[in-house]
Amino acid sequence: MKKLYCIIALSAASAAFSQKALERVEPSFWWKGMKNPELQILVYGKGIAGQEISLSDGIQIKDLQKVENPNYVFITVNTNEITVPKFTINIKKNKKTLGSYVYELKQRNSGSADRESYTSKDVMYLIMPDRFANGDEKNDSTPDLIEKADRSMPNGRHGGDLKGIINHLDYIQNLGATAVWLTPVNEDNEKVYSYHGYAQTDLYKIDSRYGTNEDYKTLSRELNKRNMKLVMDYVTNHWGVSHWMIKDLPTKDWIHWFSDGEKGFKRSNYKITSQFDTNASEIDKKYALDGWFDTTMPDINQKNPLVLKYLTQNAIWWIEYAELGGFRVDTYPYNDKEAMAQWAKAITDEYPKFNIVGETWLSTPGHISAWQKNSKTGEAAGYNSNLPSVMDFVLFAEMPRAFKEKQGWNAGMNKIYDAMTSDFLYPDINNLLVFFENHDTERWNEIFNADPKAYKMGLTLISTVRGIPQIYYGSEIGMRGNKEKGGDADIRRDFPGGWKSDKQNAFSPAMQTPEQKEFFHFTQKLLNWRKGKEVIHTGKTKNFTPENNVFTYFRYNDKESVMVMINNNDKDQAVPLNRFEESLEGFTKGKEVISGKEIILQNTLSIPAKTSLIIELEK
Amino acid sequence: MKKLYCIIALSAASAAFSQKALERVEPSFWWKGMKNPELQILVYGKGIAGQEISLSDGIQIKDLQKVENPNYVFITVNTNEITVPKFTINIKKNKKTLGSYVYELKQRNSGSADRESYTSKDVMYLIMPDRFANGDEKNDSTPDLIEKADRSMPNGRHGGDLKGIINHLDYIQNLGATAVWLTPVNEDNEKVYSYHGYAQTDLYKIDSRYGTNEDYKTLSRELNKRNMKLVMDYVTNHWGVSHWMIKDLPTKDWIHWFSDGEKGFKRSNYKITSQFDTNASEIDKKYALDGWFDTTMPDINQKNPLVLKYLTQNAIWWIEYAELGGFRVDTYPYNDKEAMAQWAKAITDEYPKFNIVGETWLSTPGHISAWQKNSKTGEAAGYNSNLPSVMDFVLFAEMPRAFKEKQGWNAGMNKIYDAMTSDFLYPDINNLLVFFENHDTERWNEIFNADPKAYKMGLTLISTVRGIPQIYYGSEIGMRGNKEKGGDADIRRDFPGGWKSDKQNAFSPAMQTPEQKEFFHFTQKLLNWRKGKEVIHTGKTKNFTPENNVFTYFRYNDKESVMVMINNNDKDQAVPLNRFEESLEGFTKGKEVISGKEIILQNTLSIPAKTSLIIELEK
Repeated sequence: MKKLYCIIALSAASAAFSQKALERVEPSFWWKGMKNPELQILVYGKGIAGQEISLSDGIQIKDLQKVENPNYVFITVNTNEITVPKFTINIKKNKKTLGSYVYELKQRNSGSADRESYTSKDVMYLIMPDRFANGDEKNDSTPDLIEKADRSMPNGRHGGDLKGIINHLDYIQNLGATAVWLTPVNEDNEKVYSYHGYAQTDLYKIDSRYGTNEDYKTLSRELNKRNMKLVMDYVTNHWGVSHWMIKDLPTKDWIHWFSDGEKGFKRSNYKITSQFDTNASEIDKKYALDGWFDTTMPDINQKNPLVLKYLTQNAIWWIEYAELGGFRVDTYPYNDKEAMAQWAKAITDEYPKFNIVGETWLSTPGHISAWQKNSKTGEAAGYNSNLPSVMDFVLFAEMPRAFKEKQGWNAGMNKIYDAMTSDFLYPDINNLLVFFENHDTERWNEIFNADPKAYKMGLTLISTVRGIPQIYYGSEIGMRGNKEKGGDADIRRDFPGGWKSDKQNAFSPAMQTPEQKEFFHFTQKLLNWRKGKEVIHTGKTKNFTPENNVFTYFRYNDKESVMVMINNNDKDQAVPLNRFEESLEGFTKGKEVISGKEIILQNTLSIPAKTSLIIELEK
Repeated sequence: MKKLYCIIALSAASAAFSQKALERVEPSFWWKGMKNPELQILVYGKGIAGQEISLSDGIQIKDLQKVENPNYVFITVNTNEITVPKFTINIKKNKKTLGSYVYELKQRNSGSADRESYTSKDVMYLIMPDRFANGDEKNDSTPDLIEKADRSMPNGRHGGDLKGIINHLDYIQNLGATAVWLTPVNEDNEKVYSYHGYAQTDLYKIDSRYGTNEDYKTLSRELNKRNMKLVMDYVTNHWGVSHWMIKDLPTKDWIHWFSDGEKGFKRSNYKITSQFDTNASEIDKKYALDGWFDTTMPDINQKNPLVLKYLTQNAIWWIEYAELGGFRVDTYPYNDKEAMAQWAKAITDEYPKFNIVGETWLSTPGHISAWQKNSKTGEAAGYNSNLPSVMDFVLFAEMPRAFKEKQGWNAGMNKIYDAMTSDFLYPDINNLLVFFENHDTERWNEIFNADPKAYKMGLTLISTVRGIPQIYYGSEIGMRGNKEKGGDADIRRDFPGGWKSDKQNAFSPAMQTPEQKEFFHFTQKLLNWRKGKEVIHTGKTKNFTPENNVFTYFRYNDKESVMVMINNNDKDQAVPLNRFEESLEGFTKGKEVISGKEIILQNTLSIPAKTSLIIELEK
């Protein structure tokens, strides 16, 4: 009875929804020739579970699943057995057709399964699309979505869109980035605060204020033409409270409900360490995993096989449709970890080279590494995530502290050194996302008061250590933003020049201020150099313990060696080189990458205060 | 040539040594019936390598190893093949006997191999013997050793000895400790600063200012009679610069030499993370592992098989001779890790239940756990230590900070909670040494200004979480000591009442001050209760995330449940109990261990500020 009551209550809540016999089919089309031939089609319509459902062309329904809510059926077919390119889903009652849908099975692009994805060869450029560039003013506000553009509101929609990004691909490419991660661009039809996109209301549709699905595919293709990749920000953990399925839940357990919470809501305790903690209480785990990330974001129950299938197919649909080059997955440790292991496996089974990085915001290498595929730390917890890549939140956390400190046993550059002494815990150390900021954190240039010296040292570090560097739009021109004072909006300011009315266009190198130029040119020089450097992408690392707040390390392989020296000391340093003999043996000179200067290797190497050197060593 | 020069130089340095044809035999005796029947006997005498060496009774020398220094030979015999209880080692030249030694093979005590060792059932009491109690004033200064007693010198010898400890076993037992760890008591014949014992000059002989080898065995037997254990502080990493073998090195590579260091000395860089760090440079590793811990402590080269054999046999000799109940091993990660894995294996092969805890002073659970036998983190680094137990230096580091802080996301009691979320990395979580201070650290009562409330909370924590609690002499009567101001001497003050001239005898409960009594009685109550509590020794743990700076956790097994609540808040708290339902289900009341009060489990539990409760739950 209790269950029934819930269904009725849920259905009643969705009364505003206009309901037809056949309203939605998801995925709206699919492909022939996937490794997994099984396809589950969600068919949605008023009382559809009570109707007769059949497929044309004698196609067999392998499974027809009905759920608590009669407005849903889930049809499973085997695409290998379907020989026609299109077939019809018929909804009938007493032989009368109530609705029908022509389902298409497209041909895959050649090489789709074997597509390349981002690796440590790449540099990832993170964009908040609403705040980058407004390429099409006509879609700033759209009739189908509630929140309209208002650039005067820090947390409002500002009009940035996919066209704006497409217009500035030259800029991004020239900068030296090779992969572009957009925060979510699927529809987010919340009344306010919709610009961040994490409260998605349709997982198969680009938000009309950003453009169309076709625009998204165009962006991806334009990137691919440039040998660049589009990385989708995928969200498995939560959907928007206004998602059409949330408003008419297929099953009560589609999301996590708290019977004592207002509208089912209880906030997560964010204690995601409980995923591997053998001491964690059930209630803490429940709140960590099942609690909602925020009031507008119902927590999705990946344990429900229908949910998991939906998330898996949706993910694969976007990869195949938009020709994607990778995923970044939001709030990874907040999900059910067993379900996510299946999700990641299903995707990488279909696309073996496809990279997926989880937002593993944890504070120890033991915990973070446990989320990487085949890790021993995961094994210690009886877990294998199947997730190829994780984020190095340890280095991220230490960097601002480290660069502000003087030399100390575990202070200053020693913090950087120490952070990487746990690299042995990661089974694939090159598949770590390395960053000093993102859209959720204080901006580096704010922490260091827009000091180009601090920026250059920080960028040198993340661009030359193991892993995939990730940078955040605007920092390459010195953008600041104070999260503590101004909230999220302040770290997500509009890129100057992205709007016609902007006084300055910082996308144009000629129009950059001298200050902006200094940031930009350094970034451009460093990242473009990095593009071809296999020794940085996959070389080994040799770190030397920092002395006098100078950190020296080498990246090397059989062919090349690069010496990096970061002097975080307030004073110039003359660094004796004999300590680095094992890495310098055979080399007599080198070329500094940024300045292009030749450096003769003598007894000491002089390095100015708060400066870094990147030296390609030569015999 | 270079090598030869070194040998000559070393021999010349030892000219002061009076040399006879047969001066030393080590081990001086051995036992029949060890699992490993092989015995290597070091025979030392002037030019002994040039003489004829033979054994009586037709006993075969399996191997006779000569080394660079002609004053040493290493004879290997198979004890299984020796049927006589005693045999003679003869040193001859041209049939003339230059020296001989009667070698005894004793019978082992029954059950020796299967001896019990300390476990999580125990509480370890750490004593610095020179600073605990002077049981025999006659040995305060002894003719054979340089440094004489001078209690007025903070860093001098104060006269504490084994007899002093034996005299106070009632005190220790009544306190509730069940294992006693003494900092090293082997001979340390340095001119100054010899009291700490870590610069040992004879590994087979108790320092005469502490007593005799027999006294040491007596202490162990007296402890065993009380069902208590003696834990030896074993030092594999370094010996004293005045050790007889250091003064006449068997081989140049017996210790680590730095050709550019004064008398071979270079200080360790203490970067022991390099043991597992895949990025570590060879020179950093070399300084970490081969650098000397201090000028008076030459760094021993465990890679030399003769050294390793010597250390292994010496360790086994002490276990068998003194009937030991365990080892604590100094500076564990400073040793060659492969050699130490062999060392630990040899000992635990001989004594399968024997416990050995390494001083794993590292800052992450990933690094610490990698030192524990069969850990996945060790496996990630391609290593298995064979070391049963490690020290929880993470909890140790967090405790003082945590108890000083107010509630915060990662502050206050959350630091304690967080520290234990990595327990999954340890393959044997019960075999962790848990402590808030030792002889190398600031004293807890100094950090907390001798506040009994802070002491009680801290002791409650380490006595009720997983692992083996270790306490430090004197803290149980509120002793303070300021390492920052007063150096090591100040955290190693004399126990009041250990010397006849002391004004107060705090060993006698009747003579304790009211302040001392408060510390003592709490400790005594808690530790004696803990003795019989299997649920604490080996029970599971359930931790609940701290709220309002109150940390609540449960220890439980099939039979029992104990609830621990630590209120580190400045204010009294009424803690709602419904959150703990999963652990409280079926229980209606409980008995608080320290106060003995009955507690009825209602909606909330009141707990005063800065207080802990330990509640045995009842149906």
